[in-house]
Amino acid sequence: MSDADLIETEVSSEELFDGVLLRVKRDEVRTPSGAIAVREWVDHPGAAVVIAQLDNSKLLFERQFRYPMHRIFIELPAGKIDSGEHALDTAKRELQEETGYKARNWRHVGTMHPCIGYSNERIEIFFAHGLSFVGGGLDDEEFLEVIEMSVTDAMLAIRDGDITDAKTITALVWAEKLISGEWS
Amino acid sequence: MSDADLIETEVSSEELFDGVLLRVKRDEVRTPSGAIAVREWVDHPGAAVVIAQLDNSKLLFERQFRYPMHRIFIELPAGKIDSGEHALDTAKRELQEETGYKARNWRHVGTMHPCIGYSNERIEIFFAHGLSFVGGGLDDEEFLEVIEMSVTDAMLAIRDGDITDAKTITALVWAEKLISGEWS
Repeated sequence: MSDADLIETEVSSEELFDGVLLRVKRDEVRTPSGAIAVREWVDHPGAAVVIAQLDNSKLLFERQFRYPMHRIFIELPAGKIDSGEHALDTAKRELQEETGYKARNWRHVGTMHPCIGYSNERIEIFFAHGLSFVGGGLDDEEFLEVIEMSVTDAMLAIRDGDITDAKTITALVWAEKLISGEWS
Repeated sequence: MSDADLIETEVSSEELFDGVLLRVKRDEVRTPSGAIAVREWVDHPGAAVVIAQLDNSKLLFERQFRYPMHRIFIELPAGKIDSGEHALDTAKRELQEETGYKARNWRHVGTMHPCIGYSNERIEIFFAHGLSFVGGGLDDEEFLEVIEMSVTDAMLAIRDGDITDAKTITALVWAEKLISGEWS
């Protein structure tokens, strides 16, 4: 099957609203069969997530309340890219703001798309080590607890349903493969 | 840190719009410090994703155009839960509609949350084997190509950036660990 048999093209685009956090659009598209269909989607600036490995080899995680699910989640440090910001700078900023750590060594390892059905969000995945604690500074509206966990224990937490956040699980694939040396 | 230091409580809730695909809400919440903050979020019915293993041991994947990113993605079969539907029935329905396959053996293996910052979507992960081709039936607005790939090749596709969809990568963690016998 050729790509042309799959591709939809924009016919019109309308902004449904531009909120404090979310920007939502409704587009009309032409499908491969020539029909018109509606696509509603979130226009997102993108984000960065950090695999931050301490000198004791454990990773930094956060316990954070996530309002849409009304629950606390265990997550890797992450945050939205500010306007004009490079994703690496987002990663450095969020790691320090949220955990108080700075890292000497940074590497971009991959990209994920968390919600391709209704959002254009991409999340850039960074691996950081050589950490030192310098103190943080959370936003007024952010409340979280920093915890340490080994990659092995994090994989077991996935198996046992204690880690269910897909960006964290996706980044942990990279963490497990890179730290084990299976991927270089 | 106790959970009470993290939890936000709803003060008011307003529906911003109820579209063809998306339902978006804006709530005011009380943060742990007592301040009022705004939370905009997508109210989602949930979804199911299927790790479908053929008798040749390969998995079924789809190439599908995803409008928000204006790109074709390689994904595992998945779809939204219809109103009142059990997630297992969603998984069976979507596998047959999208790939034409039925499976004799089904197992629920886990749950993921793809977008905890701004959606309450959960995705139930199913493992299916004992597949037989019976023919499918896509929705009028769905266009996709079914492909087969081994778990090993799928992990390499993650490493090389050819698979970036987080629900697919998350489900592939389960696929790799279950098929290798590392998880039972």
